[in-house]
Amino acid sequence: MALIVQKYGGTSVANTERIKNVARKVISYKQEGHDVVVVLSAMSGETNRLIALAKEAQERPDARELDQLISTGEQVTISLFAMTMMQMGYKSRSFLGFQVPIKTDTSHTKARMIDIPDSNIKNAIKKGFVPVVAGFQGISMSGDITTLGRGGSDTTAVAVAAAIGADMCEIFTDVDGVYTTDPNICDKARKLDRISYEEMLEMASLGAKVLEIRSVELAMRYDVPVHVRSSFNNNRGTMVVKEDKDMENVLVSGVAYSRNEARITIKKVPDQPGIAARIFTPISDANIIVDMIIQNTRAGDMTDMTFTVPRTDYDNAMDIVRKVAKDIGAEDVTGDKNIAKISIIGLGMRNHAGVATKMFDILFRHGINIMMISTSEIKVSCVIEEKFTELAVRALHDGFGLEKND
Amino acid sequence: MALIVQKYGGTSVANTERIKNVARKVISYKQEGHDVVVVLSAMSGETNRLIALAKEAQERPDARELDQLISTGEQVTISLFAMTMMQMGYKSRSFLGFQVPIKTDTSHTKARMIDIPDSNIKNAIKKGFVPVVAGFQGISMSGDITTLGRGGSDTTAVAVAAAIGADMCEIFTDVDGVYTTDPNICDKARKLDRISYEEMLEMASLGAKVLEIRSVELAMRYDVPVHVRSSFNNNRGTMVVKEDKDMENVLVSGVAYSRNEARITIKKVPDQPGIAARIFTPISDANIIVDMIIQNTRAGDMTDMTFTVPRTDYDNAMDIVRKVAKDIGAEDVTGDKNIAKISIIGLGMRNHAGVATKMFDILFRHGINIMMISTSEIKVSCVIEEKFTELAVRALHDGFGLEKND
Repeated sequence: MALIVQKYGGTSVANTERIKNVARKVISYKQEGHDVVVVLSAMSGETNRLIALAKEAQERPDARELDQLISTGEQVTISLFAMTMMQMGYKSRSFLGFQVPIKTDTSHTKARMIDIPDSNIKNAIKKGFVPVVAGFQGISMSGDITTLGRGGSDTTAVAVAAAIGADMCEIFTDVDGVYTTDPNICDKARKLDRISYEEMLEMASLGAKVLEIRSVELAMRYDVPVHVRSSFNNNRGTMVVKEDKDMENVLVSGVAYSRNEARITIKKVPDQPGIAARIFTPISDANIIVDMIIQNTRAGDMTDMTFTVPRTDYDNAMDIVRKVAKDIGAEDVTGDKNIAKISIIGLGMRNHAGVATKMFDILFRHGINIMMISTSEIKVSCVIEEKFTELAVRALHDGFGLEKND
Repeated sequence: MALIVQKYGGTSVANTERIKNVARKVISYKQEGHDVVVVLSAMSGETNRLIALAKEAQERPDARELDQLISTGEQVTISLFAMTMMQMGYKSRSFLGFQVPIKTDTSHTKARMIDIPDSNIKNAIKKGFVPVVAGFQGISMSGDITTLGRGGSDTTAVAVAAAIGADMCEIFTDVDGVYTTDPNICDKARKLDRISYEEMLEMASLGAKVLEIRSVELAMRYDVPVHVRSSFNNNRGTMVVKEDKDMENVLVSGVAYSRNEARITIKKVPDQPGIAARIFTPISDANIIVDMIIQNTRAGDMTDMTFTVPRTDYDNAMDIVRKVAKDIGAEDVTGDKNIAKISIIGLGMRNHAGVATKMFDILFRHGINIMMISTSEIKVSCVIEEKFTELAVRALHDGFGLEKND
């Protein structure tokens, strides 16, 4: 007898037949005595279809109007879902962002939630309805429809779970849960039974696209247990939860990788105060996010400056950097798109020395050269040549014994 | 320098190309110095597509959820339209029913408007925006999305025009205006420059589907001049306005016809008090609307009872009537689907006798037998055999000289 928020993505509600399957799943929970609140995405492909229409209308679609437009996707699925539940004999009621209400700021297309009063949803549950909430959308204080950005439905689900004090938030997706690494490149990858919010955050930010980062942040802040599981079977997935003592015994929980970055090096930069600002200000002015930065002192008053940017911003960044390099009298600019960032993640690193060293050693023994290193409390990342990505992932997965059970 | 509300239907906004054409038309008004508020329908076919989806989900779709679903159609067109206006260099802002707000009662799928506060639209105009309002939809006091029923966008346009005190409401449609009769069956049909609200109401209720009846009622109540005109050209259409002295000089303004009815006759009904109630109560209980009723007294205590029902309800009505006839001891029930109702409409009838007589005479001279007659202050209707429809329309159009200018 729990209160559960369940989120189903676009492929799960792609047509009325699939919507019926989801309804049957929800009903199985109701029959076990649980109260369920359903959060839905738009039918798969619908949001992209609407964005394409918007671009036909306006080269750079106005953000408010774009939100007004694309929020219809979820409006369609929630009303169809409520009807399906009724057809199957259950009371149900759909809720748009403004009907919950999910109050947000006014940052259209990437709004932040401010408040979710719980009374409408709770009253519906009390009256025996299965509430069906539109994911991805909210309402700003000025009465405009807002959207939360890609993956926003996960965030809606966790936020609603937090608001109504749900016992759990279940994210039904097209994978079985969170894995120690990408099963597509490492067949020894193992599904994790549990993972801490902190570890999940690092995994998510490194490109393990199971859960949207903001939803994990929210779950952590409000301590909402999140169950990531498949919508195609009834298998137990991965619980994303608050860390406990046991978790710290595990040195490394997962190996993540990202091929979304590129490296830029400025050679022989005069080593003067304020030189970093002169290099990075124009880059950030162009809305390019710099991730890792390394400075190697050379002989004399010269230094080499190396940093990474998103690969999609590489060409743009190179143009900017070449100009800056000339201005500050640097010798040369080189760059490399063919890099990968490999990371190991684990709560246990906090209290155990030598994890980073072991990582370097494993990579060395496989002949993989490390170009850059960065570390955080529960993560070590190395930039390597892209061609070594799979090898590095498998070597680290083996080396840290991740195929074994927790 | 007028304040004008313009409504464009589904074919005018069927795709982004057509939406651009409408935007250009609106801009031509702006360039003449007018303030314009645009009301749009859904893309043609979209509402039916959504209703079909609803029926896949639920045999008899829940009315609240159906409104939640089909209101997305207008949401898509208004946001695309606002973007298009911006692309063309004009400030524009879309308004959903709840954002205007258009307050309605809770009768889902056929809601009645209660109040339209004007401040949001007026503020937008003051700030230089072209407001784009979703037709067909409103918001109930309980915060649910409602829809106004078929043709609801016309009603939205007139109601918004009344609320903001617009100088005129222009309804852009696929015909050039209101004609003296159906041009498809009478090539002498002439477009009217002006017609009174009362006459338009009678025309609309008789199947001249240019304007939705409720929008005409609203226009009459709030004295909003309505300009019905083509969206495909710049020709002047028909002004629907308050009657003036001149209009009373015209005996007959138009000839309308309807093939949507069927006749039922109960023969030799015992002529007793309460017999009409025994016949018509079960029919109205079945939600069948009876239009004309005629009672012919026969010899003895017997009478024949003839009435008309919508043709789509004919079979259902016959079943009910046969049962009743047996119960009350009537002799026989006969029926006829092949009838037509021909009407002449004109304000001048109020003060001029002999108009009905002239109509009967014209029909008689063309060998057309009159089966039933009903009259109102500004209308005379005759039921005839369906095969004479075109002949009757042309004969009356000629006979009353409608091809001549007002």
